[in-house]
Amino acid sequence: MREEGIHNHKLQYDALILRFSGEIGIKSRPVRLRLEKRIEEIVKRELTREGIKVLGVSKFLGRLIINTPEPIAAIPRLTKVFGISSLSPALRTSSNLQDIVEASLRIAKGLLRPGSTFAVKCRRVGSHPYRSPEVCRRVGEAILNGIGRDVKVNLDEPDTSFSIEVRGADAYVYVENETIKGPGGFPKGSQGKVLCLLSGGVDSAVALWLAMKRGCYPLLVYFDNEPYTDDTTTQRAVEVAKKLSEWTQGFCNRVYLVPHGNNLKEILDRCPRRLTCILCKRMMYRIAEVLADRLGAEGLLTGEALGEQASQTLHNLRILEQAIVKYPVHRPLLGFDKDETHKIARLIGVYELTARKVKECTAAPEKPATKASIEDVLEAEERLDVDTMVRKTFEGIVVRRLDRDFSGT
Amino acid sequence: MREEGIHNHKLQYDALILRFSGEIGIKSRPVRLRLEKRIEEIVKRELTREGIKVLGVSKFLGRLIINTPEPIAAIPRLTKVFGISSLSPALRTSSNLQDIVEASLRIAKGLLRPGSTFAVKCRRVGSHPYRSPEVCRRVGEAILNGIGRDVKVNLDEPDTSFSIEVRGADAYVYVENETIKGPGGFPKGSQGKVLCLLSGGVDSAVALWLAMKRGCYPLLVYFDNEPYTDDTTTQRAVEVAKKLSEWTQGFCNRVYLVPHGNNLKEILDRCPRRLTCILCKRMMYRIAEVLADRLGAEGLLTGEALGEQASQTLHNLRILEQAIVKYPVHRPLLGFDKDETHKIARLIGVYELTARKVKECTAAPEKPATKASIEDVLEAEERLDVDTMVRKTFEGIVVRRLDRDFSGT
Repeated sequence: MREEGIHNHKLQYDALILRFSGEIGIKSRPVRLRLEKRIEEIVKRELTREGIKVLGVSKFLGRLIINTPEPIAAIPRLTKVFGISSLSPALRTSSNLQDIVEASLRIAKGLLRPGSTFAVKCRRVGSHPYRSPEVCRRVGEAILNGIGRDVKVNLDEPDTSFSIEVRGADAYVYVENETIKGPGGFPKGSQGKVLCLLSGGVDSAVALWLAMKRGCYPLLVYFDNEPYTDDTTTQRAVEVAKKLSEWTQGFCNRVYLVPHGNNLKEILDRCPRRLTCILCKRMMYRIAEVLADRLGAEGLLTGEALGEQASQTLHNLRILEQAIVKYPVHRPLLGFDKDETHKIARLIGVYELTARKVKECTAAPEKPATKASIEDVLEAEERLDVDTMVRKTFEGIVVRRLDRDFSGT
Repeated sequence: MREEGIHNHKLQYDALILRFSGEIGIKSRPVRLRLEKRIEEIVKRELTREGIKVLGVSKFLGRLIINTPEPIAAIPRLTKVFGISSLSPALRTSSNLQDIVEASLRIAKGLLRPGSTFAVKCRRVGSHPYRSPEVCRRVGEAILNGIGRDVKVNLDEPDTSFSIEVRGADAYVYVENETIKGPGGFPKGSQGKVLCLLSGGVDSAVALWLAMKRGCYPLLVYFDNEPYTDDTTTQRAVEVAKKLSEWTQGFCNRVYLVPHGNNLKEILDRCPRRLTCILCKRMMYRIAEVLADRLGAEGLLTGEALGEQASQTLHNLRILEQAIVKYPVHRPLLGFDKDETHKIARLIGVYELTARKVKECTAAPEKPATKASIEDVLEAEERLDVDTMVRKTFEGIVVRRLDRDFSGT
């Protein structure tokens, strides 16, 4: 919607101001520079991939300014780059005061409606023959006198707020109302690899996005419970993964599909019904741990939220986690209410996909244990040959590429 | 501000509609009933503690209705009861249509400004000689004709939206604009006990609140690093704990103060400087694990967020967690950006407290390891007598009560 707004007044912006997440700014200097450099690299690569002409990139404290004839076209890709907190399309000019006034007037003419109010702000870095308040005054006067429409100044609650950034020999004029929110967080790869247990449902999708936002490289694993689920379930998970890979600029381009139906059958055949989900999940954790080891991940990640399902009580989370020893299980949604999860899912565009009707797992018992005892669980697992199950499962793992079109597995 | 709004038009409401979190409604029937009963008990106890007269409590699907002459006075306490998603002060009347019309008109007279717009909605449970659309029409007409002011109906974007709930022989009229958001989540104690490592800073406070929101009983532990911190640090943690205990209705009324300075001294004396924070935290985890065992907790809880500090990289979180085996470490802020944490801190009223300047730990090294190797960490810990340190620490633990006034420890 905002992008349409920018198109509407048909002004040809020629720059894009990208602001880094505030958290990056408070890091020690070497860490800050490393993170900013990483964002710059990703931004440049993305602009190249989109085929967008870049005339120059300048880095300033807390921001990156791209000179490009197509700033609006760059926005959809760059709003998916973690570490960017906001983006403003801007008009570039020289730091000559008359040039600034003219550029501002050009934007104002395209934008201000009769009867509306505006304000002007200026920040200046470098040495110039004027000070910031003078810039605001001159630009304000020029708009009031030169626009040929009845507009007023309102510094407290303006309809339109012009911002002028003067940096050395250059100046940039933009409109605060047109500033677009970025995803925030840290750039991709500033953390290590995390192995995400993706189900295709909304929780694991949002949990994965949150981990990516904080800089993790995601590795994706899906446990295929066929015949207790079917291909609709698998297909949904693959599509969710594909959608989320838009945020990783091509890194997260595969899903490890783990055949888990035989394990689940063993559990159903040999163990108490009320423990089915816990035992199934403990097997998933175990398999994920071995996979994490092979892939060099530093932790597991799930969409579990406290109390959301019977297997997700505080008590059962402990029972689950006792199945593994080498890796922590990270649960970004631990304290989320379902509506908060849905809100993020909508923002990142996975809600519809994850809400799609698929075959629910038919192995889930009617009365699952919310407070399984570890003794009961261990006793039940004695009836299983856990090591062999894990080993056999690995023989059947299939890697599904996300960047190619497949009709089947 | 909303409460002032309610006071402003000086209407004597006599009921309060409390709605349960949507997530409770989708639980299996026995779980739902148990959670709702729990909320009802907490609400009744809170009203008694506040000295608020209750004339009756009725439970309906998804909501609880309190008949009380002081609904406004009850709001500050009940907005701190987890499991409630929203609250509406209401006017109670009989389900006789004329009574409903009169009650609605009374509210409208106190509330509607000249030139403003309104809408009327009705939901009805039970058998009545009228249907919902008729209620809306009759109430709408009465307001248009009887208020003596120029007001208009606007069903899409009304300034004021009246809601009428008819339930058997009773009816309740309230104004949607006056509906207040509750904290959501699950009622206190619907999950087990979690041991929270509280530092007094904003992260652990918000993490703790999120765990409480999802129904956990919090147990609080504070690691006192004196002489590397001082009493300002401890005092702040105690005050944060006190503030947060408002949300637990008297349950979370103590903090375990653990003397950790000697442990830190040992670490500083014997181990590499760059590992100080990781080794210090691993000791905290170990001590917390023993304490969790003694207190019957089911997990540990920290305010750690991915990448926020050197000790909180994905890599180092793994190194930390390898110090313990019996409990999972829950990190509700794992995927949070700092501004998101601050936003919740402001909402729950701990921001100012946690932002208060205290003595920062002077043992923190200038260049902490962001990617410590587990071999280095284990080698460093060989120079420590970890078991003795844990045992000795326990001898010095002090329990600070939060519901009494202390000047010292």
